[in-house]
Amino acid sequence: MTTISDVQSTTAPTLLERYFAVRHQTAALCEPLETEDYVVSSMSDVSPTKWHLAHTSWFFETFVLAPFDDTYVSPNPKYAFLFNSYYVQAGERHCRAQRGLVTRPTVAEVNVYRAHVDAAMSALIDRIAGDTDHPALSVIELGLHHEQQHQELMLTDIKHVFWTNPMRPAYAPRPRSTSTEVSPAGWHTVAAGIHRIGHWGEGFAFDNESPSHRVFVDDFRIGTRLVTNAEYLEFIEDRGYHRPELWLSNGWAKIRESTWQAPLYWELSPDGWTEFSLAGTHPLDLAEPVCHVSHYEADAFARWAGVRLPTEPEWEIAARNVRVDGPFVEAKNFHPAPASSSTGLQQLYGDVWQWTQSAYLAYPGYTPAAGAIGEYNGKWMSDQWVLRGASCATPRSHARVTYRNFFPSDARWQFMGIRLAANA
Amino acid sequence: MTTISDVQSTTAPTLLERYFAVRHQTAALCEPLETEDYVVSSMSDVSPTKWHLAHTSWFFETFVLAPFDDTYVSPNPKYAFLFNSYYVQAGERHCRAQRGLVTRPTVAEVNVYRAHVDAAMSALIDRIAGDTDHPALSVIELGLHHEQQHQELMLTDIKHVFWTNPMRPAYAPRPRSTSTEVSPAGWHTVAAGIHRIGHWGEGFAFDNESPSHRVFVDDFRIGTRLVTNAEYLEFIEDRGYHRPELWLSNGWAKIRESTWQAPLYWELSPDGWTEFSLAGTHPLDLAEPVCHVSHYEADAFARWAGVRLPTEPEWEIAARNVRVDGPFVEAKNFHPAPASSSTGLQQLYGDVWQWTQSAYLAYPGYTPAAGAIGEYNGKWMSDQWVLRGASCATPRSHARVTYRNFFPSDARWQFMGIRLAANA
Amino acid sequence: MTTISDVQSTTAPTLLERYFAVRHQTAALCEPLETEDYVVSSMSDVSPTKWHLAHTSWFFETFVLAPFDDTYVSPNPKYAFLFNSYYVQAGERHCRAQRGLVTRPTVAEVNVYRAHVDAAMSALIDRIAGDTDHPALSVIELGLHHEQQHQELMLTDIKHVFWTNPMRPAYAPRPRSTSTEVSPAGWHTVAAGIHRIGHWGEGFAFDNESPSHRVFVDDFRIGTRLVTNAEYLEFIEDRGYHRPELWLSNGWAKIRESTWQAPLYWELSPDGWTEFSLAGTHPLDLAEPVCHVSHYEADAFARWAGVRLPTEPEWEIAARNVRVDGPFVEAKNFHPAPASSSTGLQQLYGDVWQWTQSAYLAYPGYTPAAGAIGEYNGKWMSDQWVLRGASCATPRSHARVTYRNFFPSDARWQFMGIRLAANA
Amino acid sequence: MTTISDVQSTTAPTLLERYFAVRHQTAALCEPLETEDYVVSSMSDVSPTKWHLAHTSWFFETFVLAPFDDTYVSPNPKYAFLFNSYYVQAGERHCRAQRGLVTRPTVAEVNVYRAHVDAAMSALIDRIAGDTDHPALSVIELGLHHEQQHQELMLTDIKHVFWTNPMRPAYAPRPRSTSTEVSPAGWHTVAAGIHRIGHWGEGFAFDNESPSHRVFVDDFRIGTRLVTNAEYLEFIEDRGYHRPELWLSNGWAKIRESTWQAPLYWELSPDGWTEFSLAGTHPLDLAEPVCHVSHYEADAFARWAGVRLPTEPEWEIAARNVRVDGPFVEAKNFHPAPASSSTGLQQLYGDVWQWTQSAYLAYPGYTPAAGAIGEYNGKWMSDQWVLRGASCATPRSHARVTYRNFFPSDARWQFMGIRLAANA
Repeated sequence: MTTISDVQSTTAPTLLERYFAVRHQTAALCEPLETEDYVVSSMSDVSPTKWHLAHTSWFFETFVLAPFDDTYVSPNPKYAFLFNSYYVQAGERHCRAQRGLVTRPTVAEVNVYRAHVDAAMSALIDRIAGDTDHPALSVIELGLHHEQQHQELMLTDIKHVFWTNPMRPAYAPRPRSTSTEVSPAGWHTVAAGIHRIGHWGEGFAFDNESPSHRVFVDDFRIGTRLVTNAEYLEFIEDRGYHRPELWLSNGWAKIRESTWQAPLYWELSPDGWTEFSLAGTHPLDLAEPVCHVSHYEADAFARWAGVRLPTEPEWEIAARNVRVDGPFVEAKNFHPAPASSSTGLQQLYGDVWQWTQSAYLAYPGYTPAAGAIGEYNGKWMSDQWVLRGASCATPRSHARVTYRNFFPSDARWQFMGIRLAANA
Repeated sequence: MTTISDVQSTTAPTLLERYFAVRHQTAALCEPLETEDYVVSSMSDVSPTKWHLAHTSWFFETFVLAPFDDTYVSPNPKYAFLFNSYYVQAGERHCRAQRGLVTRPTVAEVNVYRAHVDAAMSALIDRIAGDTDHPALSVIELGLHHEQQHQELMLTDIKHVFWTNPMRPAYAPRPRSTSTEVSPAGWHTVAAGIHRIGHWGEGFAFDNESPSHRVFVDDFRIGTRLVTNAEYLEFIEDRGYHRPELWLSNGWAKIRESTWQAPLYWELSPDGWTEFSLAGTHPLDLAEPVCHVSHYEADAFARWAGVRLPTEPEWEIAARNVRVDGPFVEAKNFHPAPASSSTGLQQLYGDVWQWTQSAYLAYPGYTPAAGAIGEYNGKWMSDQWVLRGASCATPRSHARVTYRNFFPSDARWQFMGIRLAANA
Repeated sequence: MTTISDVQSTTAPTLLERYFAVRHQTAALCEPLETEDYVVSSMSDVSPTKWHLAHTSWFFETFVLAPFDDTYVSPNPKYAFLFNSYYVQAGERHCRAQRGLVTRPTVAEVNVYRAHVDAAMSALIDRIAGDTDHPALSVIELGLHHEQQHQELMLTDIKHVFWTNPMRPAYAPRPRSTSTEVSPAGWHTVAAGIHRIGHWGEGFAFDNESPSHRVFVDDFRIGTRLVTNAEYLEFIEDRGYHRPELWLSNGWAKIRESTWQAPLYWELSPDGWTEFSLAGTHPLDLAEPVCHVSHYEADAFARWAGVRLPTEPEWEIAARNVRVDGPFVEAKNFHPAPASSSTGLQQLYGDVWQWTQSAYLAYPGYTPAAGAIGEYNGKWMSDQWVLRGASCATPRSHARVTYRNFFPSDARWQFMGIRLAANA
Repeated sequence: MTTISDVQSTTAPTLLERYFAVRHQTAALCEPLETEDYVVSSMSDVSPTKWHLAHTSWFFETFVLAPFDDTYVSPNPKYAFLFNSYYVQAGERHCRAQRGLVTRPTVAEVNVYRAHVDAAMSALIDRIAGDTDHPALSVIELGLHHEQQHQELMLTDIKHVFWTNPMRPAYAPRPRSTSTEVSPAGWHTVAAGIHRIGHWGEGFAFDNESPSHRVFVDDFRIGTRLVTNAEYLEFIEDRGYHRPELWLSNGWAKIRESTWQAPLYWELSPDGWTEFSLAGTHPLDLAEPVCHVSHYEADAFARWAGVRLPTEPEWEIAARNVRVDGPFVEAKNFHPAPASSSTGLQQLYGDVWQWTQSAYLAYPGYTPAAGAIGEYNGKWMSDQWVLRGASCATPRSHARVTYRNFFPSDARWQFMGIRLAANA
């Protein structure tokens, strides 16, 4: 399993170095934004950038500073109300639907809040770093991974904000095309047997990746690369969005009640299909992985293709011996990249999260932490699907083979794509 | 596994006998109703009795008579539109939301329709019964099980219709109390291993019970009987509906946006808790199994009790060697009955369906039938949970150990209850 | 002003005779119905026939028998809850949205309720008829007019129920065509001046028609007959539903969010426009008055025609000297009839209610009655428009020149049509 | 009637001076705002400040520069889409519901847009000012009054934005209390007769104030001052919000489905009632006029008080001979001020708009202008009420005796209050 030290120098960075590396990365991601961009929420899933900046600080304040630093005073008692997301046991909180209506604190004031938390965290880490059993350490680690999750959300959320705006602004320039020849779709085969999946050993993992446990999995095949825009376009042109027999019933209902006729961010212009990315609107690149599809669409595509999506044990078993590598957010693509011409198992990480056909449920023996922090993952285990891998918006040090991302059937605004599987 | 012949005389009934037995049972269930009762739908899940009578006939008409009887003519071409439920590939159909607004055909006209279908089916069965390979036979079998499912729905739906009416009519008299001493809650233990689950061999099963396949299951314990009203009342009195830490996030949201403070059909009167059943309103019987709880409530109750719900493999493995027995609809309880004083594994069938913590998903290698009939089960495999067992509204010949019932998290109007499980 | 005695024999009927005439007329209107037809509500404005039968009895029970007959006992105390419409001061009442979900009491039981009320009313009227100052008399009079209003609603409501049903049943045969030559559209002119409008003198009127008062009205012209289907079709064919400049802003929004492209009950078939009436579906009769248009459509049509709708004082001033005559419900047309070839002011009553451009507001000095019965008219004086005249569903004895009917802008299910007006 | 020259120096300002005075006033009102404050819309009635700044410029661009300046080029063709409010005939436009989601153009870019329009307008006015018949002149005049309307909206909208924010920021300091003794409520009496109302003669007026016309009005009394917070509090304490007999039916429904228990911006704190104003939250000042009540509340209050609201003819007739005076926005109160101790007719202008019991309808003979600009007022004439007077957010030069403001029954976010009336 990769750890943060893999992507750093030979001397492992200290916790303080890692703390500031993550915190600065958050700020760096904001550089292309205007003040106005920080304020709005373009749909219920999207939080304002300003809120992400504050909430990640609130997390350290609430779960680290409040219990472990007696001297800590919040700059404003209302921040605890405004910037709590969903931790019911941590107290009353602002209604999510109104996050995008709050103009104060301003961006500048939120940055003061961040600095205030950073100063207190810095002092605390200094004080406890030597005590490797200190209970704050694992919470700080969690807080860093929490902030990395929000870094990804900041990118997917601002993308949606920009898309909602008829001006269609761009966040970053379009990366130079690296398209070489894409490999043909191939299969990686795994034989039936009992496997151990889930997190064990060293390194950080969220609680929902534990306990590791045995599963029996029959023979299966898994796609060596992601499904491309070209392949998805074939599905569309074969009237995929008009054939009810390809869809789950809820998916077909969604198609009928919405205007979905293609992935989110695709538009049919007089000159052909375009895609909106964080680089603005440009012609659809057929070699790139299809992205911003719901589980409904991934499932219908797989059915159309005569196969299916992988289960999460299958994905993890297949990926277990592959190095955690990919472009990740550090590549500054902000968009999934085409596969290489290699025929091995590729694109597992760093382009798009991959829908599985596994519902997001507790592993056998799963026990969330006590108290508000136990709400982090456990209470979401209904009506969602697991996605595996990592995307072009994921920090490299945040990815690992046991990672369980999860979203409901109709979510599309994340960097979500398709890897196929089949019975062997 | 039980088959229909188990519950009949020593001479296996012919298909024609079974056809009419099922069809007459549908009519018999209507006897307590007034004409007005057949017409309405009290919520989106509830269909009018009149519609159930017609739809089950439409099923035979569409999937048996249309393909296999060249001489068949429908009494009214609009019936195909009115009485198709959700088979998109079978043609345009009436909007579900308007089912309860259709006053014609009248009940009498629907009964004429039933007789018309019965006459044609009778002639067809006569003609093909000798040909054991005739492709219509398996569809007729499916049609009979389909009608049995609707028999159960007719009871749960009319219960909701009567509940919605401030007059609170009753469908049947309250069964004499059979409460003896209820056994204390106990555990049945199963050791870890690879087990085969799902349907194989003789006898009818729905497609979603296949293929049978191997699963690895760790040591577990499963409750020997159902959770009682007395136990559920403890949960309520311990402020179960007011403690967010006990609930899935979606469940807590549901509690907050609804008026749920107890199972459906419970009411707190000045004289204590009452329950509405098909026998009208009466004091809550503490020995009876708790019923009409959602998955959210079953899950929260289990968390409060420090345990969990079983998975569907666990339920099936535990039940595999137990005879399929229970009160069923033939007992005319129309309500779950208290456990006996036995300490063995009991109440598996014929009282309430039992929520599991397994999402309703395809078994490995599952393939639905081609065409419209393939929509029967497969397209519902998202955002639902599996329930196991059978209820007091289930016909005895309809129950089996591999049966997978399924409903979404917030469904409560079926006879749904709780059996607990835990890691061993 | 017409009175009930106009339409009866030379000897004025007694109050008791009139009571039973009205009550029997309600029953007579139900004759074409099947039991199932009485139960449902096809949209929020529509009440079940069964409810109308019960509510009109509840009105006598609540406002006459309860205060004036000490011996009266209701057959069921829940009826007061079930059959109160909107009289908040008369106690808690059933939710309007659930009226169509109540299957019991049955139709037969409701008829028993009616007979029970009739018996008590008959005895009471016998007892008090000689006392011309008895306070019950005016309430009985109101109750009869109330029941006549519901007779009209029974017809418009069952029409909508039948329309909602894909079977499209008919209530009555289509009347023989009486189309002779329709007169060309002409104008009736009135000179400026102060006029007295509203009710004064003998005869029944609702409180909202009082007090009579002076208004200044400038010179105006009013159409001699109703707008025809032919004329409305010209508007449609001139793209009336696609030209925003013709519509009030709310009306245009309604057009855009709905599927309105013609009056309610019109459908474009391969053979041309059809209209659904209480006689079922038939080709549109171009000579008939346009009907089932909203205020938005009436207003847009008038703007397209370069004129406007009349105000309610204009309508009343113009109609003041015209005899109250027309087909009315007694003609059993159940549909508006074409104009005659006369060029005088015609079709004021008995075909369609006519939208005005006057908001439904209190006359100067208006005071509703004290108590629950004061809720009859007064509390509806916001966001509605006045309609004048009477329709083919109105009983003849219910019409008068000062009658103020009222509905919101988007109501279409009543027999509502258009008479034009203009500045002179 | 007052004109702009009344409130300026003895030399009437030129059109260009007036143009820049109005435009600068818009900018001046923005001074207290942070960049973030310009972006959001806190409910459907509220537009972002940034949008107001741009839309008022779009108005000049579309209705003046486009038709009358061949050389004019818009800085961005998408602005015509983004900043058209509701002028359907002026082309496609952005969805109102999404106004608050648009972060670009930034505030700085919008100000560049304003300067661009100002430069072109300045050149145009220079060119045509001498030609008093030039058709652009009346449109420029309309554009200035249009911008003044938006100045008022900017204040009421930002007030709602700040209120929605749990931080509850303030826009301006609280004005020093000027409360002297408030006069007791008195009546001003007017005798019955024919009066001429509406606009005639010199000076600007919106088209909906024309044509002037005769009305007959009976004897009436009108309150000499506005209803105070003290008086409204009596209504609350007399259970006004819990007595259905005081309310219009739609109003009572609104009360039940909302949380309304007091005017908007009132809150009951442990220390008593507070009010949120543009100066933040402070104790309720009992002497101030009640403000931010809906028509429903104004109507219920009047009924509770045993009287009624005035009609618009009554208000105008009573106010006809009173000088147009009051605090207005120039006083920088940004809140209504208490009445003086005078017993004459006072507080007609410059504190709160006053609800009437007149629906907002066309005056007899009213004809809107041709083309898109005709949508300004005419298409709103349904389901709204007229308010008379002017508020503390109205520019002084914008007020006049014939002004017809209009809002629907449930609008509360404008500075809206109550003046009573009664039959004499």
